[in-house]
Amino acid sequence: MTKDWGRKDLLGLEGLGAAEIEALLDEAASFQESPPKNVLAGRTVAFLFSEASTRTRSSFEEAALRLGAEPLSFSAAGSSLAKGETMLDTMKNLEAIGVTHFVVRHERSGVLEDLAPKVAASVVNAGDGWHEHPTQALLDLLTLRELWGGFKGKRVVILGDIRHSRVARSNLFALKKLGAKVTFCGPTPLVPDAFAAIGAQVEHDVEKALKGADAVNVLRLQLERMEQGFVTSLADYALSYQLTQARAALMKPDAPVLHPGPMNRGVEIASEVADGPRSLILKQVSNGVFVRMAVLAACDRGRTAHV
Amino acid sequence: MTKDWGRKDLLGLEGLGAAEIEALLDEAASFQESPPKNVLAGRTVAFLFSEASTRTRSSFEEAALRLGAEPLSFSAAGSSLAKGETMLDTMKNLEAIGVTHFVVRHERSGVLEDLAPKVAASVVNAGDGWHEHPTQALLDLLTLRELWGGFKGKRVVILGDIRHSRVARSNLFALKKLGAKVTFCGPTPLVPDAFAAIGAQVEHDVEKALKGADAVNVLRLQLERMEQGFVTSLADYALSYQLTQARAALMKPDAPVLHPGPMNRGVEIASEVADGPRSLILKQVSNGVFVRMAVLAACDRGRTAHV
Amino acid sequence: MTKDWGRKDLLGLEGLGAAEIEALLDEAASFQESPPKNVLAGRTVAFLFSEASTRTRSSFEEAALRLGAEPLSFSAAGSSLAKGETMLDTMKNLEAIGVTHFVVRHERSGVLEDLAPKVAASVVNAGDGWHEHPTQALLDLLTLRELWGGFKGKRVVILGDIRHSRVARSNLFALKKLGAKVTFCGPTPLVPDAFAAIGAQVEHDVEKALKGADAVNVLRLQLERMEQGFVTSLADYALSYQLTQARAALMKPDAPVLHPGPMNRGVEIASEVADGPRSLILKQVSNGVFVRMAVLAACDRGRTAHV
Repeated sequence: MTKDWGRKDLLGLEGLGAAEIEALLDEAASFQESPPKNVLAGRTVAFLFSEASTRTRSSFEEAALRLGAEPLSFSAAGSSLAKGETMLDTMKNLEAIGVTHFVVRHERSGVLEDLAPKVAASVVNAGDGWHEHPTQALLDLLTLRELWGGFKGKRVVILGDIRHSRVARSNLFALKKLGAKVTFCGPTPLVPDAFAAIGAQVEHDVEKALKGADAVNVLRLQLERMEQGFVTSLADYALSYQLTQARAALMKPDAPVLHPGPMNRGVEIASEVADGPRSLILKQVSNGVFVRMAVLAACDRGRTAHV
Repeated sequence: MTKDWGRKDLLGLEGLGAAEIEALLDEAASFQESPPKNVLAGRTVAFLFSEASTRTRSSFEEAALRLGAEPLSFSAAGSSLAKGETMLDTMKNLEAIGVTHFVVRHERSGVLEDLAPKVAASVVNAGDGWHEHPTQALLDLLTLRELWGGFKGKRVVILGDIRHSRVARSNLFALKKLGAKVTFCGPTPLVPDAFAAIGAQVEHDVEKALKGADAVNVLRLQLERMEQGFVTSLADYALSYQLTQARAALMKPDAPVLHPGPMNRGVEIASEVADGPRSLILKQVSNGVFVRMAVLAACDRGRTAHV
Repeated sequence: MTKDWGRKDLLGLEGLGAAEIEALLDEAASFQESPPKNVLAGRTVAFLFSEASTRTRSSFEEAALRLGAEPLSFSAAGSSLAKGETMLDTMKNLEAIGVTHFVVRHERSGVLEDLAPKVAASVVNAGDGWHEHPTQALLDLLTLRELWGGFKGKRVVILGDIRHSRVARSNLFALKKLGAKVTFCGPTPLVPDAFAAIGAQVEHDVEKALKGADAVNVLRLQLERMEQGFVTSLADYALSYQLTQARAALMKPDAPVLHPGPMNRGVEIASEVADGPRSLILKQVSNGVFVRMAVLAACDRGRTAHV
């Protein structure tokens, strides 16, 4: 099943086929069962993060270590990127040093589409602007697939600040390919109706959106959205859109709750939901390491096939 | 001797018994003789440091490496802690990623008492506010025990800014349990007489304090104490409390000098003392790695016994 | 050939003999052929970088990893150096923790001459002020030697901001020892005629300098030189000194182009030259890892011979 993966990079899920996505999930699931050792021995992973990250960076680092690769402790802050070197030159240089995998987080959407073909190393998108965050969506999918077996006929609500969310976009692309329906829900400024054009159902009423849903993925509300005028106040937002226990109960029985983290408890999600029996939030995090192991390993096969 | 340790965390020395402290020192001493290899293979150590640290962080990292554990390069700065996530959520997430040991430095006293029981991973206090710094005190004790064999009848002077010192508190708790007496010495604003209530002898006259002492542990004077009005000037402080060669000579012959570092040479300690024959300051640092190896290993036994 | 190296430190190339430099290049070349494994197992490498660096730090880290040493993730920023501890005390402390190699970048020229003899660990200069950057020069030499076989009768132009360049100085010292001639070229404020006194030919006319040269090493123009009044504008500098394809063509046929990075494309070097067939810029970077492996290994032999 994993044989068909011939790419050295993972930049997004929009361009992948269902079989490719399933193959990555299968490989991640196989790693849960029997962790491979030294699959990536001799490889060096560099992290280029122009935005802060705890879980994504640590998760990729742990994934690299479990595969026997060496993570370089370098990070972009305080680097030659700050001295005005182009990002491509930085990557070419690190590649010449021996880097075989770049894990990149960048504030600009789509920046990697241009860069990845110009280096021989694998490039894995760890979040680019509002564009995609493919490994986050893959770990969401792995978590749901463990529960459901498959996605056919399922409806997933993604709740919150869709406009600025690379997580929402990557989830939408992948869930639709695998046969699920996706409802984007949130206030109009954060969920423009135009999102219908990329295949989501848009619903501004949280109760209507959740009613009968199979799962909800709650997005973090960036606190700066208030200053930017997208929401009037955190209290207003919480009143209208916070996932409370009562709202969660509108979904199908036992329908799970996901959140990519970090959570603003009491803003987009109530603590009793975050810590309640429906919550798969920490399971997502554990699955994230296996998904990233699968992605690093699959990209490495694509990379060495190219060489 | 090490069998009786059943805890997954080391948050402070106040709550430990003499036998538990001795067991940790014994294990550290055994590691000096024959370094263990891969005792913690497959473990992942995360560092959550909200205050700067050279030696403590590097010492724990070296200890982790010598035991075969993987240190995550993540640190709290630039992390989700900055995005408003609760510390417990950060720890739960890192635990889900695979972290088995947290080494935490935090500016708030006592913050770990609440957090540690809520995670399955081991939590080791690397200094919390003015509360405790247990591994620093353990390395001080190991260094003195090597010289003395035991603590009965010994009197240790702790000299300097006791008020703001977690090192002084941890040393006091441990030294008393092992049978030593402790004299806190420094100017009244930095050594309130109230400290007598927790078992120290308080003496504001440095010559009287040092006279006949068996050892002195000189604390760093944080330079901001002057701005805060605790000392009138560094020169005044040095005149009254700096450990000079003449003052060191008031102690018993060959009574050793300790300092937890980093030193302000010419402020709390004269260079000829810091670099002189009584100084055990670098020996402390070497011993710190063995003490931290013992603590990480002992906590791991407690952790896996819990699982 | 490598037997004659008896030093624990590499602080600069000015004090080395031709045979010692050749021995380092030979060892680096041998590592290209057959990478050694675990030559430095059990060693710990600490990085003290008071200036930002991507390639140098990552290159040393990769070199350490390939030799089986453990790089400490510690860096000087946010460390006890910031708390006013002397650099010697920081180094003594890290040494007591177990550090066997220091890789140091410092803004002050010559600071390591004083420090290195006071520690038992190896000290490798990764750039000190405007003084030396020996491993950069060694990798430049290795790259040229691969092409040429030797340096006798060759003339290398170093083009740009010589005044503030440790790279230029280290290259000058080493190239002359190995029998090459060196031309320093750039505007008078950046290439004072006084440089002739240390053995370089000084030429302010870029066309004259390049004519018939065997190689050119183009230096980065720090953008702050404009504010400091050394150049009137970047555009003026580019007009007069940028290495364009036309200027590169003045050299001997196929004479190579080097650059220590990071490049300001369109300022000191044109993109078509940087990416053109004469460019050895990425080869330099790859060679850097082998040079640093050789340096770390050779210093370790010197260090353990001292112990």
